[in-house]
Amino acid sequence: MANKKIYQFLSLGFENSFCQKHGKGAGGDESKEIDLIAERYFIEELSCFGKIISEESGKIGEGKKILWLDPIDGSDNFVSQIPYYGSSVALEENGVVKAGVIANFANGDIFVKDEKSFQVAKLNDLVFSDVKKNANSTVGVFERAYRSKVYAKKLSDALIKYRTPGAMALSLAYAQYFDFVILEDELREYDIKAGMFMCEDLYKYQYNDLTLICKDERKFEFYKNILLK
Amino acid sequence: MANKKIYQFLSLGFENSFCQKHGKGAGGDESKEIDLIAERYFIEELSCFGKIISEESGKIGEGKKILWLDPIDGSDNFVSQIPYYGSSVALEENGVVKAGVIANFANGDIFVKDEKSFQVAKLNDLVFSDVKKNANSTVGVFERAYRSKVYAKKLSDALIKYRTPGAMALSLAYAQYFDFVILEDELREYDIKAGMFMCEDLYKYQYNDLTLICKDERKFEFYKNILLK
Repeated sequence: MANKKIYQFLSLGFENSFCQKHGKGAGGDESKEIDLIAERYFIEELSCFGKIISEESGKIGEGKKILWLDPIDGSDNFVSQIPYYGSSVALEENGVVKAGVIANFANGDIFVKDEKSFQVAKLNDLVFSDVKKNANSTVGVFERAYRSKVYAKKLSDALIKYRTPGAMALSLAYAQYFDFVILEDELREYDIKAGMFMCEDLYKYQYNDLTLICKDERKFEFYKNILLK
Repeated sequence: MANKKIYQFLSLGFENSFCQKHGKGAGGDESKEIDLIAERYFIEELSCFGKIISEESGKIGEGKKILWLDPIDGSDNFVSQIPYYGSSVALEENGVVKAGVIANFANGDIFVKDEKSFQVAKLNDLVFSDVKKNANSTVGVFERAYRSKVYAKKLSDALIKYRTPGAMALSLAYAQYFDFVILEDELREYDIKAGMFMCEDLYKYQYNDLTLICKDERKFEFYKNILLK
């Protein structure tokens, strides 16, 4: 399993060489050595399933099924040793996502969802259990809040606390736990295909560049009112 | 070792009961069951060394040496299952911090600094190595940016990316890795005694409610100029 191999590889220690720059990848961001190392693990494992569309190398292989791949989601976090980065893979058939896998390489969490179940495990033992909504959350996540034009100020005026950990796919995988996930930006398919699939049964508001996701209907209405006021 | 015991205890799984509220602690924040569980582990281990001053229970015991304790730094993250929370202990003698220990219970990192060395290990093996400055960082951390009155806007106007992971002691322990750590707030001793000790050889600007810490002199001047413009 590619995710487990990458996690074990990264557990051997952080190396400066992982941060070497390789120019812009297909998604528009600079590809780093670690992105390409992780991409190779995924290509080896996934290319038999269909065509891969990767944030780094773009289209790889052929097939009716499409695998949307972000080998390292949060690679700025990785090179800055901020412990919140991982990978995201979505399997799409005829325009519909059928399965998603998102891993957190900083702490070993892995989330796997298909049409039947949504489960979580640790990469070192792979003992899976159902993802349960967390009824105790007190804070949510607002990714890329530092470039917010409208909504960060509204939350701040309403004295709402939030975090900006810096890896969008991971934050969507964790949405069942957090008070909310807010995105205010253009969204790229590599970043969100698997994550949005993991949020399919949550409350969601999307309009223009704003996305709000909540596990709880009452909180969803509360935060939506603040954002749209 | 209290940190290892708490880490192992938390590895058994997240329980709703950990989030039970117990009213305001000595530091002014609501104490949760997990804060009190972790505090008990630390009291058992630390009370022989001197007087403990804990964010939860205030002063415990007597002694010339003072142990500043935050049993769970980032407890809103813990109850919201945002993987960035830990503990902070500082040992103070005659008003001078002599040692600090900060642990990240979300991924098992532990930082230990005394007057001779600053080392990091994983809690599951405790194989220590010297903390090395990370020359590859591309982003920094701005804690509590959501309640910023001045500086978040300055960074945003200058198109500076940052993260807000939500645990101040942890972010100070990691400062050798990140591009910068910015705090814009009143600072409480439980939160920062150990962390500031870990940053003692870094570049630092403190004035009123702004604190900027950088591992690199050139970047320190760059970010300071943006913040003070």
